[in-house]
Amino acid sequence: MLLREYEGGVAVLTLNAPGSLNALSDGMLAALSGAFGALAEDRSVKVVVLRGAGRAFCAGHDLKEMQAARGAADKGAAYFADLFARCAAMMQAIPALQQPVIAEVHGIATAAGCQLAASCDMVVAAEGARFGVNGVNIGLFCSTPMVALTRKVPPGVAFEMLVTGEFLNAGRAREVGLVNRVVPAERLHEETMALARTVAGKLTAAVKVGKRAFYDQQGLGLAEAYRQTGAVMVENMLWRDTEEGIAAFLEKRAPDWKE
Amino acid sequence: MLLREYEGGVAVLTLNAPGSLNALSDGMLAALSGAFGALAEDRSVKVVVLRGAGRAFCAGHDLKEMQAARGAADKGAAYFADLFARCAAMMQAIPALQQPVIAEVHGIATAAGCQLAASCDMVVAAEGARFGVNGVNIGLFCSTPMVALTRKVPPGVAFEMLVTGEFLNAGRAREVGLVNRVVPAERLHEETMALARTVAGKLTAAVKVGKRAFYDQQGLGLAEAYRQTGAVMVENMLWRDTEEGIAAFLEKRAPDWKE
Amino acid sequence: MLLREYEGGVAVLTLNAPGSLNALSDGMLAALSGAFGALAEDRSVKVVVLRGAGRAFCAGHDLKEMQAARGAADKGAAYFADLFARCAAMMQAIPALQQPVIAEVHGIATAAGCQLAASCDMVVAAEGARFGVNGVNIGLFCSTPMVALTRKVPPGVAFEMLVTGEFLNAGRAREVGLVNRVVPAERLHEETMALARTVAGKLTAAVKVGKRAFYDQQGLGLAEAYRQTGAVMVENMLWRDTEEGIAAFLEKRAPDWKE
Repeated sequence: MLLREYEGGVAVLTLNAPGSLNALSDGMLAALSGAFGALAEDRSVKVVVLRGAGRAFCAGHDLKEMQAARGAADKGAAYFADLFARCAAMMQAIPALQQPVIAEVHGIATAAGCQLAASCDMVVAAEGARFGVNGVNIGLFCSTPMVALTRKVPPGVAFEMLVTGEFLNAGRAREVGLVNRVVPAERLHEETMALARTVAGKLTAAVKVGKRAFYDQQGLGLAEAYRQTGAVMVENMLWRDTEEGIAAFLEKRAPDWKE
Repeated sequence: MLLREYEGGVAVLTLNAPGSLNALSDGMLAALSGAFGALAEDRSVKVVVLRGAGRAFCAGHDLKEMQAARGAADKGAAYFADLFARCAAMMQAIPALQQPVIAEVHGIATAAGCQLAASCDMVVAAEGARFGVNGVNIGLFCSTPMVALTRKVPPGVAFEMLVTGEFLNAGRAREVGLVNRVVPAERLHEETMALARTVAGKLTAAVKVGKRAFYDQQGLGLAEAYRQTGAVMVENMLWRDTEEGIAAFLEKRAPDWKE
Repeated sequence: MLLREYEGGVAVLTLNAPGSLNALSDGMLAALSGAFGALAEDRSVKVVVLRGAGRAFCAGHDLKEMQAARGAADKGAAYFADLFARCAAMMQAIPALQQPVIAEVHGIATAAGCQLAASCDMVVAAEGARFGVNGVNIGLFCSTPMVALTRKVPPGVAFEMLVTGEFLNAGRAREVGLVNRVVPAERLHEETMALARTVAGKLTAAVKVGKRAFYDQQGLGLAEAYRQTGAVMVENMLWRDTEEGIAAFLEKRAPDWKE
């Protein structure tokens, strides 16, 4: 259900349920949460790429599974509450992960699939890829996907997507900040891996403390944000590898990092 | 002063004081507040369109009325305080309304007129429409319009508009998130109504809880935002019409909604 | 180290250490802090322009000075903590200043140099100018520059810059809100001064209270933001020059301001 490959410090996770457009079924959510849990402990992985097998990145929740839950005495209320809690925990695990996570998006990323892409730190999209929070079309407003989406794009853009159910194409998604790079479909994986390798080539410890500081300082007032990040800078400066990185830069040579 | 028309679930409110470029006089503010108050109770209206008669959408406060207030013993201080409070309450009524509100902007939207457009959930603009917070040109910094504007566009863009008094054209306004769609002037109303009808065709209850959740979750940390929106998703899933909407989607047929 | 010129209400500060690409050495930080401190008291200056001599705007911290500090018993820890505190205080002095501050950027603005540009209220960039937070390339994540950058551009854009160390060109920087205007390199200073003069021509007291209100209301809920800015509007309305500005506008003549 979730393929895992490793290549030079990059973990590639492939959602592999193409028959359901990689729906976030109970099984898929568990597989993703498990994978992120393992990555949190895995210092050999420097960057994570998340992509989907088949025609699409991810089409959101597994609607058949959700309808089936209505047979319970409470009409599914407890199941739904648990489902959205598990899904939200999985989504929040992405910014909490030490490694940068790149979504590699082709086809469609809809509803919780759009949320999954928006929860990643960066997104590379194929030309022709489309993003939607279109639950409103079936009477289920994308309230949870909205949380991730509105933290990436201007509110007016998000609102239109949510109430019309219409798609954002890759170009507009890049213009407004949801997507980092738009590349030809046939070069999508290659370009995503190139970005991943660029990041994997940096000092891993610096990327790790930087990613944490990035999310920790969001929404803080300037004084507090500077207080927190200033402490991170001091810590970072005192590392042997950073001393070497700066020395190498001043001497116009490649750094000899030990990590 | 404020025309009200109803067409298939869409309420069209037209500011109708073209001689003053639809200035937000005491009368206009009262008419808008009254209209929003009525809409808050009107379940037959699914979407609201707000537009202006004559050459412009809205040119902001009624400066003649404001100057006249200076004759009071306190030089107008009490009147001004009351005026800005009434105006701010009217602006805040728009995101608080259950229905999505679309500004249909032609000509200019300036000062509190720009604030009015930015306070709407979505904006459709005619090619040639211009947006400005240009009170600085007459010595009155657009401090209150700034509140709505800075919640829609990047801070650097807003700052330049505020201190230069210069206009943002429709294309740049779309690029930065203030405007959703730019259309030829002769098709402005038609295209705005098409957008309104698209939204009016969705499950009204879903749009209503979704709009509320949209504004409620803004600015919250991820965990709290997911807690709130997860509860909305559970509620939404338990509606009969949502069950039907999902079933219809899975069976590739149109939903039979009862609401 | 820091040149100061005055021209018609505009103070032009030029970082003048071209041999180090205008690095923010201890001396440069002190000069900037001193200049901002003086400007805070100087009512004759209406707008500030900040630019760099030589090939670049500013390349960030002075790495040689930082490496030299490692000789201390604590390996530089106390120096680094003090350095980042002084730097953060200087950056925060820019939004706190009464005058709008415009960065005039050519060549590169990297690391704390990018932070310096992002801390300014507006940025005019030469075609060909590039912005980077590329400390990650030498093992020092740009954690403090990130604070200013993420308050200007969408988070996905900032994240990519931070972990890849790659540059944003001037055009893309404008698209996402970091830059206000992109102009031909040979007209950079002329166009920046034209913008400065436009702002300097406004009622200074209005720009001053407006700039303060701009930053004070950021991040507040709507009701509190309107309460604060409404009070600023009332104060602004009661000034003699604002009464005159509005009267002049209504009478289609130039205002006779006394300030």
